[in-house]
Amino acid sequence: MNTELMMQAQCAKEAAVKLAVATTEEKNKALLLIADALTERCDEILEANRLDCDAARAKGTGNAMIDRLTLTKARIEDIAEGVRQVADLPDPVGEEIESFTRPNGLKIRKVRVPLGVIGMIYEARPNVTVDAAVLALKAGSAVLLRGSGSALNSNLAIVKVMREALRDTDIPEDAIALVGGVSHDVVDEMMSLRGYIDLMIPRGGAGLIRRVVDGCRVPVLETGVGNCHIYVDKYADAEMAEKILINAKTQRPAVCNAAETLLVHADRRETALSLCESLKAAGVTVHGCPEICKLFPEAVPAEEADYTDEYLSLHMAVKIVESEDEAIAHIRRYGTGHTEAIITGCPDAAEKFTRQVDASSVNVNASTRFTDGFQFGFGAEIGISTQKMHARGPLGLREITSFKFIVEGTGQIRG
Amino acid sequence: MNTELMMQAQCAKEAAVKLAVATTEEKNKALLLIADALTERCDEILEANRLDCDAARAKGTGNAMIDRLTLTKARIEDIAEGVRQVADLPDPVGEEIESFTRPNGLKIRKVRVPLGVIGMIYEARPNVTVDAAVLALKAGSAVLLRGSGSALNSNLAIVKVMREALRDTDIPEDAIALVGGVSHDVVDEMMSLRGYIDLMIPRGGAGLIRRVVDGCRVPVLETGVGNCHIYVDKYADAEMAEKILINAKTQRPAVCNAAETLLVHADRRETALSLCESLKAAGVTVHGCPEICKLFPEAVPAEEADYTDEYLSLHMAVKIVESEDEAIAHIRRYGTGHTEAIITGCPDAAEKFTRQVDASSVNVNASTRFTDGFQFGFGAEIGISTQKMHARGPLGLREITSFKFIVEGTGQIRG
Repeated sequence: MNTELMMQAQCAKEAAVKLAVATTEEKNKALLLIADALTERCDEILEANRLDCDAARAKGTGNAMIDRLTLTKARIEDIAEGVRQVADLPDPVGEEIESFTRPNGLKIRKVRVPLGVIGMIYEARPNVTVDAAVLALKAGSAVLLRGSGSALNSNLAIVKVMREALRDTDIPEDAIALVGGVSHDVVDEMMSLRGYIDLMIPRGGAGLIRRVVDGCRVPVLETGVGNCHIYVDKYADAEMAEKILINAKTQRPAVCNAAETLLVHADRRETALSLCESLKAAGVTVHGCPEICKLFPEAVPAEEADYTDEYLSLHMAVKIVESEDEAIAHIRRYGTGHTEAIITGCPDAAEKFTRQVDASSVNVNASTRFTDGFQFGFGAEIGISTQKMHARGPLGLREITSFKFIVEGTGQIRG
Repeated sequence: MNTELMMQAQCAKEAAVKLAVATTEEKNKALLLIADALTERCDEILEANRLDCDAARAKGTGNAMIDRLTLTKARIEDIAEGVRQVADLPDPVGEEIESFTRPNGLKIRKVRVPLGVIGMIYEARPNVTVDAAVLALKAGSAVLLRGSGSALNSNLAIVKVMREALRDTDIPEDAIALVGGVSHDVVDEMMSLRGYIDLMIPRGGAGLIRRVVDGCRVPVLETGVGNCHIYVDKYADAEMAEKILINAKTQRPAVCNAAETLLVHADRRETALSLCESLKAAGVTVHGCPEICKLFPEAVPAEEADYTDEYLSLHMAVKIVESEDEAIAHIRRYGTGHTEAIITGCPDAAEKFTRQVDASSVNVNASTRFTDGFQFGFGAEIGISTQKMHARGPLGLREITSFKFIVEGTGQIRG
């Protein structure tokens, strides 16, 4: 085991003990100092970011990726503003979730507590470094951050600024740490830190998430892969269907809650055709099932991969289904449990869909793009959980906490 | 991959889809039929159990273990009664956890849903086979059960009876399945069933739990290891301390919420001595720190293992601590996050202890033995979670469910 990593983990664990009992005021003071430091020391961060961007360009990285990696003064100001918003959110720690008194007089309270140390393994965008650190801090947990090598200089500069901002607070600097250098082994070592990391959150592409979920020996909160469907039911309003479809597919195609497959009821072939035309007009390539290819000859014939994988770009699989049951079965087979939507005017069809479709968010007559911490009113989020344990959907502050039972007695023993 | 296991997993997954939408009435009917079948077909089960007990005796298994393995008519009747109690518990599925309306008119409801397929890997006692199956069923999930080889005949008979009882219901028999024969490989294969098992619960000794937590590639709910402490504070009532200590240590020493280490404040050496004498009188061997060995010469000198391991028998580590801080630090180092208790008359000491000690249950002036589904009023439980994710403490029906967000709109799109 890497000695530096073990030391960082031990320091994070000790910092977490102190952070767990920090007051809301102390935590908010730290957050505001971090926000100020990020804008004040903007040049330092931009300089480091330039090194990353130059290296990426030299390696022939695509423009979209370079854009995600690039920081500007305005982007850093936005990030700092996000930190101030986290300071404004209610502190989840100490919240009494429920309380009750047992017949023997024991008073039992279920109280929200921090998780301890959160590990975060993520890709590219350096803003995640700040988001993860400040959400964890507000939720009372230390973080061990492992960003991608391509953002290493940016992340080093950002973490240095955040840690130094903590020097004027009672919160230990070690509550925020960046793990390892460019070595890949450090990820494997981090994933084996049982007893040090209480929760691991992977954030990035399907490959990264798969690797962490497969290899991790600490509990993982799986995030992000969203193979989201829109099912246009027999009783759908065609205009509403078009509006929602185009929003869900094109408003921001690269994110996890963008729609990837359109299913249309066989009785609505005309609607299907008109939706394909709307998709085309919006710049989307249609990958159709054989029936769609007959209706809309410009469609590319869909293969299995068109149903299984996220495009994260202006492509969409479109398929005719004979019934709502077939739509639900298709979603059960290909969905990733992120967000699934039905467009229908029939309450029974809506009820059946919401009951039988198993996903973090099941939407009726609403765009898939709403599955998001801000849209749900939870504030900033650390990711979207697609697993069924612990938390599902947007991971806001409450979702990255645990709880304990406090049992108060007057000498009770068990009979 | 074992073909039979894959088939069982596939069948369980399909059964789970049906079970997820079963009504409370259907599920309760199934539970009552299972309870009746267990008592009616008691002889069949007892015969199979005799094979297991004979084999265990032939292998030289100890009496305590044989006792845990043995079923009797009365024990089966108790088990059946437990099943009827689960039928009486409220159905967690469909419960609306919260609901709110967003400014754009979206109505968002957070609704409790089944997990899907629960895997259970457990040891010895055949009653766990029934408990796990019926709790999962009531919570809307199918189960794949893997008991120990030593209870194989009993488990086969019990599962046969339960599955056949389901034939007169709308719930598929495959909602309850026993995995594999005597092969050990099947456990490893079961632990790799990502996409089939939504949640794995290990239940048994520290070795079993460690193996599952280390090797499992599906989400795990860690249960059970309880290295529980009682801290007798400077301001403790000596009589209350004695009563709670003896209850926590001796009322049922083999279970996870029995106390294993006693910490006594240095100002209370006399109390420490009298507690050691009470322990001795109750048949408990004291393993003392050097100070305790001076005070109470009959103590065996404690070694590191006395602080790290559960005894699960009539032994107890006893240590003098200089302060509450030292007690909390000791618990942080050696505790397993199960149940920790302070005995004190001082509200500040109690508040500090409950705030700083991180465990599923932190008790003030109450026995550690209360951490239990029935004692908390949750009804039957599938185990006690000692991890911080998903659920902590007694795992009742609600704790073995997930939730989803149902988002109802009127055509909303994201701006």
